[in-house]
Amino acid sequence: MANKAAPDSSRRSERSRRAIFDAALTLVGEVGYDKLTIEGIASRAGVGKQTIYRWWPSKAAVLLDAFTEGVDEYEGLPDTGDLAADLKFVLRATADEFNDPAFQAPYRALAAAGANDEELSRTFLARLMEPGTRVYVDRLRAAQETGEVAADIDVRIAVEMLLSPFSQRWLMRTGELTYDFVDTLVDQVLRGVRPRG
Amino acid sequence: MANKAAPDSSRRSERSRRAIFDAALTLVGEVGYDKLTIEGIASRAGVGKQTIYRWWPSKAAVLLDAFTEGVDEYEGLPDTGDLAADLKFVLRATADEFNDPAFQAPYRALAAAGANDEELSRTFLARLMEPGTRVYVDRLRAAQETGEVAADIDVRIAVEMLLSPFSQRWLMRTGELTYDFVDTLVDQVLRGVRPRG
Repeated sequence: MANKAAPDSSRRSERSRRAIFDAALTLVGEVGYDKLTIEGIASRAGVGKQTIYRWWPSKAAVLLDAFTEGVDEYEGLPDTGDLAADLKFVLRATADEFNDPAFQAPYRALAAAGANDEELSRTFLARLMEPGTRVYVDRLRAAQETGEVAADIDVRIAVEMLLSPFSQRWLMRTGELTYDFVDTLVDQVLRGVRPRG
Repeated sequence: MANKAAPDSSRRSERSRRAIFDAALTLVGEVGYDKLTIEGIASRAGVGKQTIYRWWPSKAAVLLDAFTEGVDEYEGLPDTGDLAADLKFVLRATADEFNDPAFQAPYRALAAAGANDEELSRTFLARLMEPGTRVYVDRLRAAQETGEVAADIDVRIAVEMLLSPFSQRWLMRTGELTYDFVDTLVDQVLRGVRPRG
């Protein structure tokens, strides 16, 4: 094999990378995190396992890259000046995504693995949950500056009041993620954080 | 062996039962739910595995009984007439419990297993989480009747705003369960549910 990259080698790499991500996400949904192996991913993706080891040190690293592919840049929440409408818009879209079976299985397997594996959980949080949470914190801080949210509110905890019930309904299957639920949740959280008139 | 129960046979049964529960809780914390076996529990408890199978059909059933032992009767939250004080009192005590390493490992293993195993999760919810949630719902409904909580509040979602951030900090290790956190959470949730005055 030539050492120099052929003209289309980066396109081929990109295709392998994509195939590896797809295989990792599908497999972890099928067999769970514990039984996921680099060999299994390689075989499903149609690549040699050395190809995977060249790019990633572990199955956790593959999975985390597969998950963050495309969500690496959180763009921030919309800011139309109507905080309630902005939050409902984004959380309704997130509910649609979480209700999609193709999204469910791999994400659930990773969340479950993270509950037992502290290191995986910390990486998962830093790479996925923390950026996803921060856009809400930023949006509420912006609202605090315009006076839509009271100055003495702990914004971080307000965001947890909004996002944790959503995550927990999904993860623990304690309830449906309906638009009604999302809207009531947003209204009740905002009722608590608005300045007293 | 005599077929009739000896005078102390029920005490012996109780001792075996207790040993089996202790073994199940310790082991699931050590090896995780997937690797937990009836054989392992029997061996750790010093009983024959037939003793376990006589009383329980599966490892999940043993674990669920072990967890609910002693918490089967939820007594309801205190009602001193001061909703904030009552909620802080109970949630601070719960934080102490969740911060105890002896409690952590088995509960975390069960929660993780539940994220992957829908049937286990549903049983876990019905036996453990639902009764634990209901006492908060009841306390908030009582407060709704005395006018401490506004009539148009969805009490169930208000309870989720209170308990889900607590559970998620613990399960996903997104933050510490401090008294400060508990107090601020209670204050911000109640600020949202109190009648506008």
